[in-house]
Amino acid sequence: MFEAAEVGRKITKEAFKKQVPKLREQLLQAQFALSKTNTPVIIIISGVDAAGRGEVVNALNEWMDPRGLETIAIDTPTDEEQARPYFWRYWRQLPARGRIGIFFGGWYVDPIQDMAYGQLEPAQMDEALIQIRRFESLLVEDGALILKYWLHLSKDEQCKRLHKLSEDPHTRRSVSDRDWQHAELYDAFTHAAERAIRHTDSGDSPWHIIESTNTRYRDLTVAQSVLENLNHVIAKYEAREQLRQQGEILATAATPSVPSDFNLGNQTRTVLDTVDLTQTVSAKDYRKALTTYQGKLHRLAWEASRQKRSTLIVFEGWDAAGKGGSIRRMTQAMDARLYRVISTAAPTDEERAHHYLWRFWRHIPRAGMVTVYDRTWYGRVLVERVEGFANESEWKRAYLEINNFEENLAKHGIIVLKFWLHLDQEEQLRRFKEREQIPYKRHKITEEDWRNREKWDEYVTAIDDMVARTSTEFAPWTLIAGNDKRFARLQVLETVCQRLEAELGVTEEELPKAEKAKDKKKKG
Amino acid sequence: MFEAAEVGRKITKEAFKKQVPKLREQLLQAQFALSKTNTPVIIIISGVDAAGRGEVVNALNEWMDPRGLETIAIDTPTDEEQARPYFWRYWRQLPARGRIGIFFGGWYVDPIQDMAYGQLEPAQMDEALIQIRRFESLLVEDGALILKYWLHLSKDEQCKRLHKLSEDPHTRRSVSDRDWQHAELYDAFTHAAERAIRHTDSGDSPWHIIESTNTRYRDLTVAQSVLENLNHVIAKYEAREQLRQQGEILATAATPSVPSDFNLGNQTRTVLDTVDLTQTVSAKDYRKALTTYQGKLHRLAWEASRQKRSTLIVFEGWDAAGKGGSIRRMTQAMDARLYRVISTAAPTDEERAHHYLWRFWRHIPRAGMVTVYDRTWYGRVLVERVEGFANESEWKRAYLEINNFEENLAKHGIIVLKFWLHLDQEEQLRRFKEREQIPYKRHKITEEDWRNREKWDEYVTAIDDMVARTSTEFAPWTLIAGNDKRFARLQVLETVCQRLEAELGVTEEELPKAEKAKDKKKKG
Repeated sequence: MFEAAEVGRKITKEAFKKQVPKLREQLLQAQFALSKTNTPVIIIISGVDAAGRGEVVNALNEWMDPRGLETIAIDTPTDEEQARPYFWRYWRQLPARGRIGIFFGGWYVDPIQDMAYGQLEPAQMDEALIQIRRFESLLVEDGALILKYWLHLSKDEQCKRLHKLSEDPHTRRSVSDRDWQHAELYDAFTHAAERAIRHTDSGDSPWHIIESTNTRYRDLTVAQSVLENLNHVIAKYEAREQLRQQGEILATAATPSVPSDFNLGNQTRTVLDTVDLTQTVSAKDYRKALTTYQGKLHRLAWEASRQKRSTLIVFEGWDAAGKGGSIRRMTQAMDARLYRVISTAAPTDEERAHHYLWRFWRHIPRAGMVTVYDRTWYGRVLVERVEGFANESEWKRAYLEINNFEENLAKHGIIVLKFWLHLDQEEQLRRFKEREQIPYKRHKITEEDWRNREKWDEYVTAIDDMVARTSTEFAPWTLIAGNDKRFARLQVLETVCQRLEAELGVTEEELPKAEKAKDKKKKG
Repeated sequence: MFEAAEVGRKITKEAFKKQVPKLREQLLQAQFALSKTNTPVIIIISGVDAAGRGEVVNALNEWMDPRGLETIAIDTPTDEEQARPYFWRYWRQLPARGRIGIFFGGWYVDPIQDMAYGQLEPAQMDEALIQIRRFESLLVEDGALILKYWLHLSKDEQCKRLHKLSEDPHTRRSVSDRDWQHAELYDAFTHAAERAIRHTDSGDSPWHIIESTNTRYRDLTVAQSVLENLNHVIAKYEAREQLRQQGEILATAATPSVPSDFNLGNQTRTVLDTVDLTQTVSAKDYRKALTTYQGKLHRLAWEASRQKRSTLIVFEGWDAAGKGGSIRRMTQAMDARLYRVISTAAPTDEERAHHYLWRFWRHIPRAGMVTVYDRTWYGRVLVERVEGFANESEWKRAYLEINNFEENLAKHGIIVLKFWLHLDQEEQLRRFKEREQIPYKRHKITEEDWRNREKWDEYVTAIDDMVARTSTEFAPWTLIAGNDKRFARLQVLETVCQRLEAELGVTEEELPKAEKAKDKKKKG
């Protein structure tokens, strides 16, 4: 693979001096035009040690406007990063739309290095590369431009370069023992890099291998390539804008997304029909069971904290289905230091300038916490789908993106639970009317709730799809029978307790008995 | 101080049951009204161990709407937090306007604990408390409501409570060895707490000492107090809104802020008149000196990184004074992993929902980095003052806030440099016109630049004030003579190098000689 980058490509000093001013002008113009588009640009500068990654990054910084540019050098993970899934530290550094993020090696550093050091088996390496492919696809599908450069040097050339760098007082501090160690592993590194490039050299985020012996050739080639790709993005954007201004409807534009196979009514059963809404529980049984489950949950939350296992609990459901009440019955039971409730509101403008999952990655809990989400990323395939805020291709690919996201969480050891709180239309109506009567509940009923209600059937289809496509082994949906609020609350608590017991590997017997406990304080 | 909280206050079960529903309704209403105001609410729940801080937080969570509420339990600082000034971890957790943040102990945990353990001398304790006072004042002046509760138990009662908690299987995990250790230090803790409360019990963010023997009294009293304070804020906000709607001009409202003592012209000399704008340097001398300083800066940046010292360099200046060019001459010299350029653009809506310094706290560099700011927090006392975006009381108190901010940075060991790039009106005009001729510079000249130019004299006053009030020992301003760009760049580089040498304690001789170095690559 790398032979093609050992052919002696060169640019003379004169040619370089002549080309740079023009290139800079074009780069600045492109960058300015880029800022008007909705494309975030991710540039990965990777390569052999001493090939001059730092110099290339410096050249790009110098030739472009630093105001639209960010350089991201990722070091050893901090403890905040270690307490979260692997990709968190990349998510938090992603550039916003219209901006450029230059990553030193980016997400390729660890897999290549670990494999070169023999700490990663080929199968694990391939698994890591699949994760990377998914991550990049998700970004590209969201409109990102990803440019990946591998700066190559032959073994001899690398050795020469390292000696030269370490003799020069200007640069010798940038050569560490680690660099020499890496140099000895040149073949292992090249081998690992080739594997990484091979597996991730996709059409939508291709690699560019840059011969780096001649530094002028190297810098100019990378910058030229960046320029061409920016211009391509800009041209596409402008063409689309022009069409839009001409009033033409674009295939990719947001159109109300009534699914073509929408044909419900009494004919088609959905997964919601499997929920037995007649189930109830008496007030007396409820109180008794509530005490038992809350006691159990209290102890399980401490045990999870001790084991440093995070839990993430998703609440979705019909308006007035009782999400808030169910959440409160859980949080009452736990020590306030151990949980956090995140209510998903409209995204801020910063959040809007990123992939829709960005704002959820931002808030991923650190180890040992229980995080309860009141509405979540599922908005994408529910309200955004039904209201047409997301276009068809956006919400359709969201299932895969969400599954990957949750898989990432689960693989990191986070326990993921998801609840859909179901009720029927009559019960919802009754509650809406009731809410309008109670002063401190009145603000909970808005015009929007009534509008959503009119779209009941469309939501049913969306929910059915959602459960079908995203109820996975590692993050299953539980549908809760919500016509009886008390029954629903117990069902939630029971499910959470069972799952935690199973995941934490503790049995009822191992936990201190709840029966012995005298409730210090009655709550609720 | 605490005797007043050992008098046996109680609420009966019946009274409690009767009062809670009404209280909840009022709390929810108040919270809803609060969300329309621009007040962030900070509630600190502090107190003796086992007094039930967690239970109070739980009660508030249960009685209020979790969607407008966040609970912040701050643990041992993470390494990301340790790499930044002490208050960073509190800044990053502050609630946005209209929202409530409940802090477990908040910024009082460390000083009280450290003093109780004898790790903090009284003088150091007082110094820490002064920092806290300043931090709270800054938030209050920005409109925040700060409510501080100290939950008190007598020594006997604490001991009883701990025994009870550790016998109850529901709660015994929440009692740690550390709690017993603290209990033995009851007197030391109480002593430290009293000192903390005494020094920070200001009119604008008072402490409330809550007798906590009776849990019902405790929870109800805290919640009542929260309610009263919320209602007070809301009433004030509504009164103000009403006045505003009636078209009355309020003393505190944003008014164009032409300072009353504005009387410049040829009569009054300002600090800018001390800058000798006739200074120049020849092209040949420039090139030679540039190479020397850049070489030196390169090595100093590595040395700073080795010493884990951060550097923060502020660039402010007239439009077209050459900020970008000066910044580039610096960044060229450094390894791209060691620096970051932050260009201050308009705040995002998330940023607008906090104190104006919040967005700068957000981006504080981690240890060992050089961070260059292209425009900064000084916008508050420059453009925001001149354009009236900040009202007079806002920009007037900004000097103190900024000085405190920079003192925080400096005390954490961050090297702070500030440059004002000066030029005269003729030179600015020449550059504006020149820019309009150069294609890739044309976008840099906007209507706004011309408008700013018209307000030259007002800016001169603002700059003079700024330098007078914020040029401190730990963060001095350097005024740069910018009529000759080359001279300006060298002056910046020289200042940075000198300061770094002094701060890092290295002399020219200790650094490898630049003369020996053969430049690998000519840049620029």
